[in-house]
Amino acid sequence: MWHDGARVYDLAQPMRRGMPQSPNHPPFRMLLERRHGDVVRTDGGSAANELIVTGGHVGTHVDALAHVSHDGLLYGGADPATLTTNDGFSELGIDAFEPYVGRCVLLDVARVHNTPVLPAGYEVTAADLESAAKNVEIREGDVVLVGTGWSRLWHEPDRFIGLTGGVPGPGVEAAGWLNEKRPRAVGGETIAFEQIAPGRGHATLPVHRIMLVESGVNIIETMRLHELLDAQVSEFLLILNPLPIVGATGAPVRPLAILSGERS
Amino acid sequence: MWHDGARVYDLAQPMRRGMPQSPNHPPFRMLLERRHGDVVRTDGGSAANELIVTGGHVGTHVDALAHVSHDGLLYGGADPATLTTNDGFSELGIDAFEPYVGRCVLLDVARVHNTPVLPAGYEVTAADLESAAKNVEIREGDVVLVGTGWSRLWHEPDRFIGLTGGVPGPGVEAAGWLNEKRPRAVGGETIAFEQIAPGRGHATLPVHRIMLVESGVNIIETMRLHELLDAQVSEFLLILNPLPIVGATGAPVRPLAILSGERS
Amino acid sequence: MWHDGARVYDLAQPMRRGMPQSPNHPPFRMLLERRHGDVVRTDGGSAANELIVTGGHVGTHVDALAHVSHDGLLYGGADPATLTTNDGFSELGIDAFEPYVGRCVLLDVARVHNTPVLPAGYEVTAADLESAAKNVEIREGDVVLVGTGWSRLWHEPDRFIGLTGGVPGPGVEAAGWLNEKRPRAVGGETIAFEQIAPGRGHATLPVHRIMLVESGVNIIETMRLHELLDAQVSEFLLILNPLPIVGATGAPVRPLAILSGERS
Amino acid sequence: MWHDGARVYDLAQPMRRGMPQSPNHPPFRMLLERRHGDVVRTDGGSAANELIVTGGHVGTHVDALAHVSHDGLLYGGADPATLTTNDGFSELGIDAFEPYVGRCVLLDVARVHNTPVLPAGYEVTAADLESAAKNVEIREGDVVLVGTGWSRLWHEPDRFIGLTGGVPGPGVEAAGWLNEKRPRAVGGETIAFEQIAPGRGHATLPVHRIMLVESGVNIIETMRLHELLDAQVSEFLLILNPLPIVGATGAPVRPLAILSGERS
Repeated sequence: MWHDGARVYDLAQPMRRGMPQSPNHPPFRMLLERRHGDVVRTDGGSAANELIVTGGHVGTHVDALAHVSHDGLLYGGADPATLTTNDGFSELGIDAFEPYVGRCVLLDVARVHNTPVLPAGYEVTAADLESAAKNVEIREGDVVLVGTGWSRLWHEPDRFIGLTGGVPGPGVEAAGWLNEKRPRAVGGETIAFEQIAPGRGHATLPVHRIMLVESGVNIIETMRLHELLDAQVSEFLLILNPLPIVGATGAPVRPLAILSGERS
Repeated sequence: MWHDGARVYDLAQPMRRGMPQSPNHPPFRMLLERRHGDVVRTDGGSAANELIVTGGHVGTHVDALAHVSHDGLLYGGADPATLTTNDGFSELGIDAFEPYVGRCVLLDVARVHNTPVLPAGYEVTAADLESAAKNVEIREGDVVLVGTGWSRLWHEPDRFIGLTGGVPGPGVEAAGWLNEKRPRAVGGETIAFEQIAPGRGHATLPVHRIMLVESGVNIIETMRLHELLDAQVSEFLLILNPLPIVGATGAPVRPLAILSGERS
Repeated sequence: MWHDGARVYDLAQPMRRGMPQSPNHPPFRMLLERRHGDVVRTDGGSAANELIVTGGHVGTHVDALAHVSHDGLLYGGADPATLTTNDGFSELGIDAFEPYVGRCVLLDVARVHNTPVLPAGYEVTAADLESAAKNVEIREGDVVLVGTGWSRLWHEPDRFIGLTGGVPGPGVEAAGWLNEKRPRAVGGETIAFEQIAPGRGHATLPVHRIMLVESGVNIIETMRLHELLDAQVSEFLLILNPLPIVGATGAPVRPLAILSGERS
Repeated sequence: MWHDGARVYDLAQPMRRGMPQSPNHPPFRMLLERRHGDVVRTDGGSAANELIVTGGHVGTHVDALAHVSHDGLLYGGADPATLTTNDGFSELGIDAFEPYVGRCVLLDVARVHNTPVLPAGYEVTAADLESAAKNVEIREGDVVLVGTGWSRLWHEPDRFIGLTGGVPGPGVEAAGWLNEKRPRAVGGETIAFEQIAPGRGHATLPVHRIMLVESGVNIIETMRLHELLDAQVSEFLLILNPLPIVGATGAPVRPLAILSGERS
């Protein structure tokens, strides 16, 4: 079959209590409800299960267009009030995002700077992206990811979240550069696809505005990209299938990178 | 690229409050926490978000091997007590399931009986599977799905859940037939991959025992297969990437079927 | 001390998964997270704990004035939009309800009709209340409860919820009668302090409008009153101290009736 | 009536997202589900509601005897395994705690040391309690509270929780002193009714062992006592009616102190 020999990379961070996540969202919690032996069926069978509390922007996830508004308007000039119900957004929610199976380009900005991990608060520039993209074509409709190496810091929650130290990411200029490529979605490894200066917290989110509100481009956050960065992979087939949670402003996803056998 | 012309089918049911789910598991609920305008940043930006409560066996999902024990033992003879923590299972949880990208065979048993929807409580037999499989090869390591047409009943929760009417599915004999093929996973459209007789409820789960406990074969439930059944697709590339919830006995997934362009 | 010899009645229904509750609210669920032995401290100690998911109108509870609006306005003509935040209501929430320690009158309408349990869908009338009140004085600022006997039906969830069969309770006329007494709060045993006709569901809530929106009188629902009814108690000291959940439209409470020793 | 002129003190801290709570327990979160206008009934009525996620040991709460075990045993030598179900504890849960309406003594140890707030990590001694109790009688079956002044620090979450700085409270010696009085329950203002040395975290809980496991005495934590301390009240009627959550190891409560008119 045509996928023979393909290599698959798991691009999601594992979800567990205490993992790094934005303080703006409900904390993830999974706990067992029934354990084996609690209820034993007549034939000797027993089933364990769990309850999960989470947010839509927790762990590796995709932002829906409904996530952000600017000056009171969503993408396309939609009035959020008319789309908002007690069951979430009737339009522009994550269920409006078609599962993506297609080309993806990874721009390794950390490598441009000869470092495995960009400094906290570093602003990724258009020149950085240009350098990282010099050997790969970006086509309209691709998903474009920006490598910072920050998925390596997953096990250091405070540093990863960057409330005091900041987080590296694209500034407004880089967002414009990305936007000109007319991508299907953009994303990266950090808690927010933004440059966050030290001490600034998540005060403003200009790249979210440019992508979600002005351009209708979804954002993928908290991806696990370091294996692809280590393998110097810049182009692959991306599977991006967030949970179809109707009306939500975002949803967890376990993205996969597939490298066809012939290319490896 | 090698996926050009591929067609993608979304095999997950949409997740929303009130959707059909097993009464044994925490009910799904998604609600908005912040709405646009609740908190407006200094630059005019505003972000909406949500809280989600769910179970691991809610909506389209994959059962981990830790889900079921029999006579006090899990797959491989493991003692559940030694693997159980307040953070879930240290082994055999859904995080032990490698994302699957591979061949999948769909056996349309409803079509064998010339019906779009098998009757409630119908036991799928080995002969049914044999008939449905007569034009397709099943290879070791494939995922094998059984079509009952029941994803067409998603919008009738009481009927779909089948507490009084029952649910069609494989009996012990059919499970044995499936098991001989040495599949990577098995699954279907119903609330439980079992034949549930009318009025019997979810009293015993013999196919879960055979698959999860005796054979180490994961089960996929509540899949949305009717588009594939309508298209008479019996073989495709399956993407099966459940959320990596560490220690959970199951996790939601949005499976995709990919049909390569040359084959369509 | 002055409470010597007092008898205490517990007026709350026990809270557990599966208890009757309005389908309009998040279902109650309590589950253990840590069990003993999961985490053992160095000294041999171990602590078990739980997670609780619930709504503010689940189990015995008090409705805050913010719970209901009519024609777009809350009590006092307040605009709900200006009081609503992602943390709930900045005014008129349950935290604005001062804990009540004071006189309470119980009007046993079931006894007026010589029955332990009023029929489903029965409308309590002003004449019923007048009869029930003939031997007890109602003073301004009292809490006034209406006995229907329905706390006896707690263990029959479908009947108690009354989605098809209906629920007995005060109609508009009786609400007017109650209101003239200028009570501090009113309440009863049923899922909603309303007369709900068979088959009508919770379509409209006129008594909620009269009490919460027009009069600023809180409502107590799902109380456990049958012990007081059996003891023919019509006057007692009520403790009504709902959880101080800031901004919520209601909160669970465990009300107590205290009968002073001299009276018993 | 006999409560005429009584003064009521609210002894519960308000519950809101971000309030101080032990990191060992699920974080409190209350959010609106329906807002006014989301669903408007035919008569112009609209109801807002909420979802609440919490733990049993969050906010002002009572510890059930089932909360703590020592060397594998609960109070009375009970084996926790035999009492544990997927619905909580079948015995010794918070539902086994009868609502308490009775005498309460408050021992103001902060005043003994002429300070409004005891230092972090301070060990309350038997001599402290003896001094604080010199003008008040403690009777068998009373609830005995220890004042540290720490409810004044509620709005400083990090300091209140004391993970690094520690928390003042009774040591083993003081617990023995309390225990000799044979109280119905004991409690205080802090996150845990223990002396927690700076930097030590919640590593061991000897007072919990002495009270819950060895003596069958419930513990009340995170109480709001500073108004009583300011008023120099040492004896009052306590209402202690935790939510009747069946099988839970603890439950939130809104305790009230009632001072009879004649005494004030």
